[in-house]
Amino acid sequence: MPLWKVYHPAGAYTAEDKKSLSERLTGLYASIPIPKFYVVILFEEVAKDSCFVGGEPHNKFVRFKVEHIARTLPGPVIREWWVRTVDEIIAPFVKDRGFDWEVSIDETPFDLWSLQGEIPPPFESVAEKRWVKENKASAYTLAEKLPVSLSLTPGIADR
Amino acid sequence: MPLWKVYHPAGAYTAEDKKSLSERLTGLYASIPIPKFYVVILFEEVAKDSCFVGGEPHNKFVRFKVEHIARTLPGPVIREWWVRTVDEIIAPFVKDRGFDWEVSIDETPFDLWSLQGEIPPPFESVAEKRWVKENKASAYTLAEKLPVSLSLTPGIADR
Amino acid sequence: MPLWKVYHPAGAYTAEDKKSLSERLTGLYASIPIPKFYVVILFEEVAKDSCFVGGEPHNKFVRFKVEHIARTLPGPVIREWWVRTVDEIIAPFVKDRGFDWEVSIDETPFDLWSLQGEIPPPFESVAEKRWVKENKASAYTLAEKLPVSLSLTPGIADR
Repeated sequence: MPLWKVYHPAGAYTAEDKKSLSERLTGLYASIPIPKFYVVILFEEVAKDSCFVGGEPHNKFVRFKVEHIARTLPGPVIREWWVRTVDEIIAPFVKDRGFDWEVSIDETPFDLWSLQGEIPPPFESVAEKRWVKENKASAYTLAEKLPVSLSLTPGIADR
Repeated sequence: MPLWKVYHPAGAYTAEDKKSLSERLTGLYASIPIPKFYVVILFEEVAKDSCFVGGEPHNKFVRFKVEHIARTLPGPVIREWWVRTVDEIIAPFVKDRGFDWEVSIDETPFDLWSLQGEIPPPFESVAEKRWVKENKASAYTLAEKLPVSLSLTPGIADR
Repeated sequence: MPLWKVYHPAGAYTAEDKKSLSERLTGLYASIPIPKFYVVILFEEVAKDSCFVGGEPHNKFVRFKVEHIARTLPGPVIREWWVRTVDEIIAPFVKDRGFDWEVSIDETPFDLWSLQGEIPPPFESVAEKRWVKENKASAYTLAEKLPVSLSLTPGIADR
């Protein structure tokens, strides 16, 4: 679900840095919970003098561009909490190293998305729980599309 | 209209592969029909150990990130059909080659878009049909902004 | 607020070109006014034969992909004006150099965004004005979240 693009100066991060940041971010999403393999993070070096902030070249800037697909963050409290939590996770990789940084998150359509050719199962469904456990995409049945907490509503009665 | 970003491992695709995939995807959009030159596909190599899935480096992963501008896919049937059709087209370039893959599509504003300095003509307009035929952007008249299937509605009458 | 990605052929722009285009675009946003440091522009070379337009490789194509966060462009007149104004600014860098080009702008959530760990202050607030003047992110007080043009509404009265 989330796609993270991390635009960073050349040489900013070692392979261990990238792995460490990826693990922490993945842990945050896994705690929602959503399947860990939904979390894709791409690190991309920006060439020298190819990043401009306020019209000036800035070679110590890290831009995090994120897309959420599997979940919408509902309401102002959760949205602020999320932004601040993400910032705590990335702080050791930006603030503590003297980089300037910016994070923005977009929310894109759940129903225009596929993984390994499978359309991801519905929110909090039996299949989604199985995907969390197995940590990989696989086919699922109609019954598995039902919510794990199944609850129907009253039959239609005379009004 | 659509912008496709294909993030792939270094060396995953030859020039012929890229052309072949681009032609197939372009053919799908051309069948809508929309002008072929609306379809822009950018292939981008992701450096080794710079792609993480589920917190682990993954060097055989292809991430397709798509933006639609000229058209919205209306309703769940067409949206599911589109996702599955795209997956069939890309399968020979991912599944059949042992890559893992993911596709997500965003829909962005039609009215914040220009090509060669021209604001694209309205949906199914005379000008759009001309752009399809000529396969390039050019100026158009007010009359060409009318729909090819022009139909007015009844005059206002006493109610 | 805006993030500009400029996908261009290798060698298309010198460091001076990039700076000049960045300054002009930043000037446009600064005139809104919004803080200049909100404007981030990333230039990215697309490798030869990795850009396809209409199914054909196109090595003289520049694709501008923009995201707006701090402001929404309200209404069709302002949206068309913006698209045309942006095109005038970029023309010397594309049209006048024989490149083909395309621009698209997305609008992403204001409330899923942070700069230097600070959530940007509200639209036209005292703090935003201070950020414009200081041209950097800093903490702000509750009082600074108020609009610069403060105006309350009448008290609740018997109806």
